[in-house]
Amino acid sequence: MKEASGRRRTVRISDVAAAAGVSKTLVSYALNNRPGVREETRERIVEKARELGWTPSLPARALSVSRAYAIGLVFEKSPEALASDQYYTSLMAGLQSVLANERYSLVTEVVESTEAEREAYLRLAQDGRVDGMVIVDLRQDDPRFALVREAGLAFVSLGWPPERTTMPVLVYDESEAITDVVRHLVDLGHRRVAQVVGPQTNAPARLRRELYQKRFREHGIDASRWIESDYTAAGGRAATAALLDGDRRPTAIVYSNDLMAVAGMSAAFSRGLRVPTDISIVGWDDITISQYLHPALSTVTQHPFDDGKVAATLLLEAIGGREFVEPVWMPNPRFVPRESSGPASA
Amino acid sequence: MKEASGRRRTVRISDVAAAAGVSKTLVSYALNNRPGVREETRERIVEKARELGWTPSLPARALSVSRAYAIGLVFEKSPEALASDQYYTSLMAGLQSVLANERYSLVTEVVESTEAEREAYLRLAQDGRVDGMVIVDLRQDDPRFALVREAGLAFVSLGWPPERTTMPVLVYDESEAITDVVRHLVDLGHRRVAQVVGPQTNAPARLRRELYQKRFREHGIDASRWIESDYTAAGGRAATAALLDGDRRPTAIVYSNDLMAVAGMSAAFSRGLRVPTDISIVGWDDITISQYLHPALSTVTQHPFDDGKVAATLLLEAIGGREFVEPVWMPNPRFVPRESSGPASA
Repeated sequence: MKEASGRRRTVRISDVAAAAGVSKTLVSYALNNRPGVREETRERIVEKARELGWTPSLPARALSVSRAYAIGLVFEKSPEALASDQYYTSLMAGLQSVLANERYSLVTEVVESTEAEREAYLRLAQDGRVDGMVIVDLRQDDPRFALVREAGLAFVSLGWPPERTTMPVLVYDESEAITDVVRHLVDLGHRRVAQVVGPQTNAPARLRRELYQKRFREHGIDASRWIESDYTAAGGRAATAALLDGDRRPTAIVYSNDLMAVAGMSAAFSRGLRVPTDISIVGWDDITISQYLHPALSTVTQHPFDDGKVAATLLLEAIGGREFVEPVWMPNPRFVPRESSGPASA
Repeated sequence: MKEASGRRRTVRISDVAAAAGVSKTLVSYALNNRPGVREETRERIVEKARELGWTPSLPARALSVSRAYAIGLVFEKSPEALASDQYYTSLMAGLQSVLANERYSLVTEVVESTEAEREAYLRLAQDGRVDGMVIVDLRQDDPRFALVREAGLAFVSLGWPPERTTMPVLVYDESEAITDVVRHLVDLGHRRVAQVVGPQTNAPARLRRELYQKRFREHGIDASRWIESDYTAAGGRAATAALLDGDRRPTAIVYSNDLMAVAGMSAAFSRGLRVPTDISIVGWDDITISQYLHPALSTVTQHPFDDGKVAATLLLEAIGGREFVEPVWMPNPRFVPRESSGPASA
C-alpha cells in the first residue's frame, strides 16, 4: 500500500496497535466487533483509535472481513506415520505458538495421495477456509507451488521452491552437521559405515544421503552402502537387521531420523551387540526421548519448533502484503555427540 | 428427519451415494458444484442422481451450505508439552483418518489459559469455523461443556461429561489394566512401590492414581508414596530422582505416561542402578518407541488412534443430527509386560 504524499497521513491499524500496546490483529478484532476480545481491552483500543482519529477504511475493512483467519497445512502421508514422528508435531506446535497470539487457527488435513492433496488445496482455497498454506517436505517437481499460485494463496515454503517467489522461504544448511558427524566417526576409527535413509523421492532426503557419501569419500571411506527406509521404527529395525546380518558388518550406521536409529539400536541389542562397543549409532532430529535413552543417542539437533514459529510469523506477514526477495536462513542443524557412538570395533 | 407416509419416497443423497458407490459427502459436493470432485466422478454422480429422480431439497441444501465442514480441537497446554506427547498426535491422526474421507478439516488451537480457551471456543463458534468440537482431558467443573451448549455446537467428549447430554461420549475402564499391573508387581515380590503421576487437577489422572493405591492396599501394600509431575521427560526425571535418592528406595515405580517412565529409567541408569534388577519400571501409553527401548518398557497400551477414529465418526453423526443416549465404551487399556519389570530386589 502506498501513501499519497502531501496529504495528512492516514491513521492505520498499526498506529492504533502501537499506541494501545497490542497486536494489529487484536485491534482489527476490537474495531470490527469480532468476538474474542475482552471488554476492557476493546474499550482501551477503541479509546486509542478515537484519540488518534482513526476512521475505518472501507476497502481495508472488506479485506479484513474476507479473511479466514486461518492457515492450512496438508500432509501427504499416512496418519500413523504422522503420529509417531515428533518432527511434525513440534513444527505444528511452533506454528500454534504464534497463531495463538494472533487469534489464527491452524487447519490441517492428512491425505494419502497426490490427487487427494490437490483436492484438499483447491477446497481450502475455494471455500475461503485459509489465508495461506505452509508447504513442507518438498518433492521433486512439487505440484503444490502451482496450486497455491493458481489459488492466489499466500504460502511459506520450508525448503527451496522450484521457482522464484515473493513468498517467504525458510532454508538451512545441513552440510555443517554432516561434516561434523563424519569427522567424529572417522576420528573414532570407523572405516565401514552405512546409512539408513528416508524415501529418496523426497529431495532433501536424497541430498542428505548424497552429502554423507561425499564427505565420507573425502576421507577415503567407501560409504556406498545405504538402505532406503520410511522413517518408521519398524522400517528402521528391518533395514538395520539387513545391515547387521550381511557380510562385512559396518562398525557405524548413520540414520536419517531418530525413530529409525532407536529401532536400529534395538536390532543390535537383540543380536547381542553392544552400542557403541560393537556398533556406533547416529540419529537425526534429536527427539525429546533421545537424550534419555541408554546409551543416550548421538544425533543431529534440528529446530522444528523454531521453524514453525518463524514460518507462521513470516506467513502472517505475507498475508498482510509483505514481499520477500531473499530466503530466510535458519540456524544450521548441529551434531550432538552422546553415548551411542564410540571407537570402532576391530 | 421423518418421511411423510403414503407419498412417493423422496430420493435422498444417501440413495445416490449407494447407487454411485461413493460417500454421501462426495455426492453432496458433486451436486452442489463444490470443488474437489474429479470431473468424471461428478458426471457419474449427476447421472445416477438423474436416474433416481433426485431433486435438491432446499432446506437440506441451505443446511449443507451453512456447514463449516470442519471440526475443532482446542488444547489447553503449552505447545512444547503438546509436541512431545505422542498420545495427542495419535489422537489427531485418528481424527484425520476419518475426516479425510469425509472432506472435513481439523481446526486446532493451542491456548495456555482457561480464559484463552474460552475465547477460542467463542471465536470458532461465532465465526462459524467449525460444526463441532472434540473435548479431551476433562477437568473438574469443566467449563467447556457450558461453552459448547451456549454456542449450540455439537461435540464429542472423551471421558464422562459433568452433565447429561445427547452428544456422543467415549469412555473406557482403566481398572482392569491397573489390576493387572498391580498383580504383576505383587507376584514379582514388590512391597515398596511408588507412583509418578500427572497433574491432579485433571480428573482422570487423579482417578488413575487413586485406583493404583486402592489395588495395592488390597494386597496389603502401602502405596502412599506418589509424586505429582507434568507428563514431561524432565518432570519424570526429577520425580524419579527424588524417589531414588530418598529413604527406603522403592523397588518398583509406576508412571502415568511413557515419557516420564523413559526419563525415570534414565535417572536410574545414571545412578548405576539396573532395570529391572534393582528397580522395576512400568509406564502408561505404549508410545511407538517403548517396545524398542533397552530394556523394552512394560507399559499399558492405549488406543488414541482408534479413539480418534471413533470420536470423529460419532461427531460427524452428531453433526448430522443423531442423538446418543448411552456412552460408547471403548476397549479397555491393556497391560503389556516387557523387560523393564522383574523380581523385586532385596
